[in-house]
Amino acid sequence: MPLRFARWTTALMFCAACAASPAPTFTAQEKPTAHSGPPNIIIILTDDLGWGDISLNGSALIKTPNIDRIGQEGIQLTDFYAGSNVCSPSRAALLTGRYPIRSGMQHVIFPHSQDGLPEEEITISEMLKAAGYRTGMVGKWHLGHTDEHWPTNHGFDWFYGVAYSNDMTPFDLYEGKQIIESPADQPQLSLNYANAAREFIQEDREKPFFLYYAETFPHIPLFVSDERSGTSEAGLYGDVVETLDAGIGILLDTLDSADISDNTLIIFTSDNGPWFEGSAGDFRGRKGETHEGGFRVPFLARWPRHIPAGTISHEMAMNIDLLPTAAAISGGTLPTDRIIDGRDLTDLLTAGAPSPHDLLFFFDGNDIVAARDTRFRLVLNTFYRTISVPFEYFGAALLFDLEKDPQESFSFIREYPEDADRLKSAVQALRSEVSENVKQPISHLAPDDGTLIGPQLTE
Amino acid sequence: MPLRFARWTTALMFCAACAASPAPTFTAQEKPTAHSGPPNIIIILTDDLGWGDISLNGSALIKTPNIDRIGQEGIQLTDFYAGSNVCSPSRAALLTGRYPIRSGMQHVIFPHSQDGLPEEEITISEMLKAAGYRTGMVGKWHLGHTDEHWPTNHGFDWFYGVAYSNDMTPFDLYEGKQIIESPADQPQLSLNYANAAREFIQEDREKPFFLYYAETFPHIPLFVSDERSGTSEAGLYGDVVETLDAGIGILLDTLDSADISDNTLIIFTSDNGPWFEGSAGDFRGRKGETHEGGFRVPFLARWPRHIPAGTISHEMAMNIDLLPTAAAISGGTLPTDRIIDGRDLTDLLTAGAPSPHDLLFFFDGNDIVAARDTRFRLVLNTFYRTISVPFEYFGAALLFDLEKDPQESFSFIREYPEDADRLKSAVQALRSEVSENVKQPISHLAPDDGTLIGPQLTE
Repeated sequence: MPLRFARWTTALMFCAACAASPAPTFTAQEKPTAHSGPPNIIIILTDDLGWGDISLNGSALIKTPNIDRIGQEGIQLTDFYAGSNVCSPSRAALLTGRYPIRSGMQHVIFPHSQDGLPEEEITISEMLKAAGYRTGMVGKWHLGHTDEHWPTNHGFDWFYGVAYSNDMTPFDLYEGKQIIESPADQPQLSLNYANAAREFIQEDREKPFFLYYAETFPHIPLFVSDERSGTSEAGLYGDVVETLDAGIGILLDTLDSADISDNTLIIFTSDNGPWFEGSAGDFRGRKGETHEGGFRVPFLARWPRHIPAGTISHEMAMNIDLLPTAAAISGGTLPTDRIIDGRDLTDLLTAGAPSPHDLLFFFDGNDIVAARDTRFRLVLNTFYRTISVPFEYFGAALLFDLEKDPQESFSFIREYPEDADRLKSAVQALRSEVSENVKQPISHLAPDDGTLIGPQLTE
Repeated sequence: MPLRFARWTTALMFCAACAASPAPTFTAQEKPTAHSGPPNIIIILTDDLGWGDISLNGSALIKTPNIDRIGQEGIQLTDFYAGSNVCSPSRAALLTGRYPIRSGMQHVIFPHSQDGLPEEEITISEMLKAAGYRTGMVGKWHLGHTDEHWPTNHGFDWFYGVAYSNDMTPFDLYEGKQIIESPADQPQLSLNYANAAREFIQEDREKPFFLYYAETFPHIPLFVSDERSGTSEAGLYGDVVETLDAGIGILLDTLDSADISDNTLIIFTSDNGPWFEGSAGDFRGRKGETHEGGFRVPFLARWPRHIPAGTISHEMAMNIDLLPTAAAISGGTLPTDRIIDGRDLTDLLTAGAPSPHDLLFFFDGNDIVAARDTRFRLVLNTFYRTISVPFEYFGAALLFDLEKDPQESFSFIREYPEDADRLKSAVQALRSEVSENVKQPISHLAPDDGTLIGPQLTE
């Protein structure tokens, strides 16, 4: 019988079901965890790390023993997607459980923008805070940098990190709303994140915690400390990834030392495909592109005694699923006044259940550029430099058979017209549903006077 | 001792060296060829076929027994490049032996353009015609469609084919300057090309011939006859590639039937990487892009008794090498009044010699976007949709180590700054050399009145 966690309440009652029905790979003799109620939850999100950039997904030149450990002691989802092919929208999807266009966060935030994640959005952090968790965030926010959009206004009790990507200026390190380092010391950032996270974890053992650990790297520009320079086989990019892996090692050690690994769900993923460097594995395309390599990202989750160790699942899922999953696991309350696109992955993670999704949609800004079901992926916008040429074929839909052709090389739209139509109709329906949220992208250009505009916080 | 063919004269003297020093895999007992002088030369050029789209390069779903046969009975070059990542410039490079900017053919030709390969350029065909060959072309020209630019004004005695790509209109089939089918019957085109080529080959046995066989497919839009529809495992794209492979089978059969296979050098390659469909193998990028997948293409060559069967070479070469190679093999005269960038590949093809190039340069329009030596590939312009963002990193050079990282995932510019500088300096020198040939690309937009403008030929 699969474990169900929805029965857990916010009062942190002892979970009788957990003790009575341990997952098959664990014995009843194992020691109890520090918290016997709902687990701590850590979501690690890397920035522009590709599907193929961890050893567990086949990287030949980068070694990621700590990241791999999460999957080896837990589950690896091969068919997991970011909610967008670029930074800000992907983060909005992850934190709200909704396709980014629903929150108006379908475009990237730039330093001069006043835009951001609206206050009325409910993040995982707000949901878990209401469920009794203490909440903290380390790393890159990138969902707006005025008071109303700041992480501490979105359910995080504590914030240690940066406003946006490390190629944007000014690039300062904050704790709460205070600048503590200006500019942020990029070569030390991964280590500083890890140490800050350790302090947060160790701070309070009474309540479960939620930690959103959003790495700055391997987004460009790449920096690494002198001591770690040249230590990988994959150049500076490899050094940077291995450094962030070492930071994750500090996190794992912290959990072990505090004896709370068994009662912590730790999730590892990335915000989109790789950019200038890095590997999308064998998948086609990269960050910003429509094909798999733009959206498909690593996903590992460890939760001892619940997720059987060494599991690999090919069921499809997306980062919009993390909010409903966290709600189910924590006993938190899902909003009912809005559409939540994500689905609870608990049974998939713990009991080999199939994907809770019949369809997943892939947004690029205002548009839905692809959709997939268990077998087919319909691609509606194949991005090329020549896309501006007004030939009808250039926007033609392609239907890829992911079972037969995971590299998306050949369209089978002729062979499966009904599947293509079904996916197209679903795309059209969702397009209509979200059409009122279509808006102009934020210009990447700073104002004419060249003024650097960054966070505008009061306090 | 490697065979040398430069001694052959245009008088078609018997080649004593050939008889005296056969390549090691052949015995002296084999029957003489129909022509004992310089061989017939066939260059097969596909349009947008990717490196990974033939069985011999690992295609799992497309079967290309005829194309493969060329490599199995001859040589396969794994590190062969098109002279550009798009159609017209790549063809200019192939036919002139020069980087396309030298002939002013660095941009794609559109139907309304009056531009084309200048009359003063010397093509392989002109060179071979002067060396006593009869010359014919089947297929897609795409180097200009006024009188002065037409194939018959560039050394081809006979032309059967189309003016440009099959996504351009009007799209008619020509013989010489006469339209023989309007519009061209695209589903039958590959077969028509093959049959026309057969007639050309069989027409005259007295002289050696040069045939430039430039397939229209698998450039989009894709068409296949009803009989061949659904016969491949790779959708319509697969059917189209297998159909053109069948056309190549007709060519090979024609050579066998005429008993001239042994005295024919047949070369198979493609004009650039794959576009919307198709596979670049494991290489990064596609048509129009800077990375390997934009430029690296299949290359197979068969020339019994000269090229040892079943050879695979990883030496780098480019389609600019075909003119000097054809000159060496035919006894033709290389122009001395202009720079020829290509080098003679005869020793590489027949005797396992190293590449005649220290460096190869990769042009995209006016710019040199990459350069490689035997180990490193310097990439100067990584094309992404975000390239317009004015951050210094976005045009930063990346240095890939093709031995360690053929997928171009990690830059080693920090590790090998001297190699990067050496390649950069060479790029800068060539940029200066060709700077006077920089020009505006031809607009893809037809004139405002919407008139269809195509070939403008007189007679």
